[in-house]
Amino acid sequence: MVDTSRDRPAGEFRPDTEEVPWLTLADLIDEGSGAEVQAFIDRLSPAETALAVSRLDPARQESLLKILSAEDVAEMLVDLPDEQAADLLGDLSAKDAAEIVDFMESNEQADILANVGSREVEAILREMPHEEAARTREILAYARDTAGALMNTEFVVFEEQRTVDAVLSHLREKADTYSDYEVQYAYVTRSGLLTGVLRLRDLLLSRGQTQIRDIMIKEPVRVLTGATLSDLVQLFESHPGFIGVPVVEPLGQLVGVVRRKTVQEAQGEQAKSLFLKFSGIVGGEEYRSLPVHQRALRRLAFLAPNIVLNMVAASVIAMYQETILAVVALAVFLPIISDMSGCAGNQAVAVSIRELSLGLIRPGEYLRVFSKEAWVGLANGAVLGALLGLVAVLWSGDAILGMVVGSALALNTLLSVLIGGSMPLLLKRLGADPALASMPLLTTVTDMCGFFFVLSFAKAALT
Amino acid sequence: MVDTSRDRPAGEFRPDTEEVPWLTLADLIDEGSGAEVQAFIDRLSPAETALAVSRLDPARQESLLKILSAEDVAEMLVDLPDEQAADLLGDLSAKDAAEIVDFMESNEQADILANVGSREVEAILREMPHEEAARTREILAYARDTAGALMNTEFVVFEEQRTVDAVLSHLREKADTYSDYEVQYAYVTRSGLLTGVLRLRDLLLSRGQTQIRDIMIKEPVRVLTGATLSDLVQLFESHPGFIGVPVVEPLGQLVGVVRRKTVQEAQGEQAKSLFLKFSGIVGGEEYRSLPVHQRALRRLAFLAPNIVLNMVAASVIAMYQETILAVVALAVFLPIISDMSGCAGNQAVAVSIRELSLGLIRPGEYLRVFSKEAWVGLANGAVLGALLGLVAVLWSGDAILGMVVGSALALNTLLSVLIGGSMPLLLKRLGADPALASMPLLTTVTDMCGFFFVLSFAKAALT
Repeated sequence: MVDTSRDRPAGEFRPDTEEVPWLTLADLIDEGSGAEVQAFIDRLSPAETALAVSRLDPARQESLLKILSAEDVAEMLVDLPDEQAADLLGDLSAKDAAEIVDFMESNEQADILANVGSREVEAILREMPHEEAARTREILAYARDTAGALMNTEFVVFEEQRTVDAVLSHLREKADTYSDYEVQYAYVTRSGLLTGVLRLRDLLLSRGQTQIRDIMIKEPVRVLTGATLSDLVQLFESHPGFIGVPVVEPLGQLVGVVRRKTVQEAQGEQAKSLFLKFSGIVGGEEYRSLPVHQRALRRLAFLAPNIVLNMVAASVIAMYQETILAVVALAVFLPIISDMSGCAGNQAVAVSIRELSLGLIRPGEYLRVFSKEAWVGLANGAVLGALLGLVAVLWSGDAILGMVVGSALALNTLLSVLIGGSMPLLLKRLGADPALASMPLLTTVTDMCGFFFVLSFAKAALT
Repeated sequence: MVDTSRDRPAGEFRPDTEEVPWLTLADLIDEGSGAEVQAFIDRLSPAETALAVSRLDPARQESLLKILSAEDVAEMLVDLPDEQAADLLGDLSAKDAAEIVDFMESNEQADILANVGSREVEAILREMPHEEAARTREILAYARDTAGALMNTEFVVFEEQRTVDAVLSHLREKADTYSDYEVQYAYVTRSGLLTGVLRLRDLLLSRGQTQIRDIMIKEPVRVLTGATLSDLVQLFESHPGFIGVPVVEPLGQLVGVVRRKTVQEAQGEQAKSLFLKFSGIVGGEEYRSLPVHQRALRRLAFLAPNIVLNMVAASVIAMYQETILAVVALAVFLPIISDMSGCAGNQAVAVSIRELSLGLIRPGEYLRVFSKEAWVGLANGAVLGALLGLVAVLWSGDAILGMVVGSALALNTLLSVLIGGSMPLLLKRLGADPALASMPLLTTVTDMCGFFFVLSFAKAALT
């Protein structure tokens, strides 16, 4: 539905990329007028708001949250990345934070509070109205990325014996409340148990005295609170017309609605976190506006175990110092073998992670991965090995050195794609996170094997 | 809107993960009954369909497309990943392919045909009805991921002087056609130029003789055909209630509608391709069901330039063979320095790519990146350098060797995060793809510097 009621000017949409919004925002905050600050923020897109707020110094960020009404702050925080919003919220007193959280929808509360420390969350919940806090507590108790955690608890519901007229007049009466709910349909219950779904269209085209149970869609598709994100993705894919699906407790009690939009956002979050974890950014997204010690420690959490694994791998070289003394040129090729095997294995890791996430492969299918990777590994190993061997011969004039490094790289490329392709399947089976653990484990193994191949071949052939 | 009209049984949704759908599908194809095959496919989710179809041998894939009606094939292809669908389509005769494409929505046609070779596309278009082909050709001409390429050309439009009664009776009459359009609103034009948007709700609540120009939303938000994906993402973020936005030519002529769903899908595609390119999978997604030579060549396209870059980096070692002969233990530490600097730099690359995509940083802000990365680089460089230095001393008993490798790693970590953090900004400025090129370039530079630091420090201090 197109709606021009927001403050953004109507007409053609042109994002303004040249403006420097955080300078203006800082000035407006210093002037101290909440209304002007709000009017300015209303003109920014969520991305621009996030940029402008993150660039303010801490003192001005604090002023900003105080100058705006709690409702406006709530609206602004929902537009920011969850970590950034949680950060800002965590700096407030529990009382102020509670007032703001109270203005958010249930699934937005859950998203942001999941990124706030558990002690702060407790303090905030204690300051919220009793009933609201209980509802939020319930949502926070559901496991991350399940229907329970992703659902909205704001929905429109009627008992099934009500008439079309009664429902229509109720809807008109409550139009203000419901305008925030994105109502396209209402749910129908009998003693709280979900029995049907009512389309707005059917309501408008029926006689006033009809009971809604006679025009509702019976036995509608529903999910349990424990349904996983991938169940939900599959469900919305199978039902392209759905914009939401009701969530029930095991006995059939209607407790919420998961919207397609929420599921797509959660899926986007997953793709993003896949990329970040694969790059060694763990423990949540990093913004450069976070404090240095936090950024340094989070990165170190990935680097420190990695350096230990690297030392383990390099210990293979330490056992062959005699060989290196005899053929010092080998020292030139060791880092090349290590890096190239890592790259080749990494490609196989990425293909397996994607195939797992698309359901194109199942965690037990090692044989399929081996047979599919073997040919690619043989082909690319042969090409890369020949290339490196040729360069080694041209540079050193030593044909045997060329054979040694070339065959070591060829063999290690084959090994890397076999291990790289199967590693995510193995980690998935073990319940570990393939995106996070595959690469460090892979490079440790392939480094050790690569170093061993080059140095033992060299020892046999060259010394 | 909840709709239980699809063949999937209503009630609670439980994906069945134990079934082996491709075996059943192969059997059904061999039996040769199109109706039974279609009934079976209807029961599968899109992911299961993709899996089942990709596991069929080529002969059975061909039979499958022949056994089903063109409309059913079209519906199945839309559910598959675009590359896989394009592959299957490319194996058909142009005539059969044209008949299938004709059953798809305009933006689905564009998605799939963008992955088919341009000569095959030409042949298919020649077989399509003239008007349809012209429309598809127009959409294919728009640049990838612009509003023109993402829009649907199926929408409901009325001239503004029509009455509510006329519009309602037209809608009822064409209900069958429009049920495929996901109609939630209609567009209003004056001589083809967009002047308003009509909400279904307002239509139902108005008197029959009212002209629709009196109840339409005037001057609605619209985009030009050239609007980019990131413009569209920003627009839908700023207007959380929109489910679609009209697309106009520069003079205001209404040509299509971009749906929120399409934009979210395109965004998901981008996140996926970011992950794949970062892992060295280029030229489109790889499925293990693709032919070996295609998979091997695509991977090689990333590996071959990489091995050349690696050789360049290793040439630094070649210049210091004397030093390695004097202190052979250095050969053990070179791969560690190379790998650790790569990991540290990579984290900074990932943070910059994310900040760029979120709009949290602008391509010219090198100084900000440098100042923010410097502290993290100093801190983590100090920790990692101390760790590696300590291990070197304990292992070799040589305090100076420990100082050499420790200080080299510390310095190179600092350098890696500075270069890694700024590389995506530089590549973006140059119009290159940061996700694809950052890592190989980064590791080449950091390898060269790392090798130079270790070996030149060692030459000065140890020989």
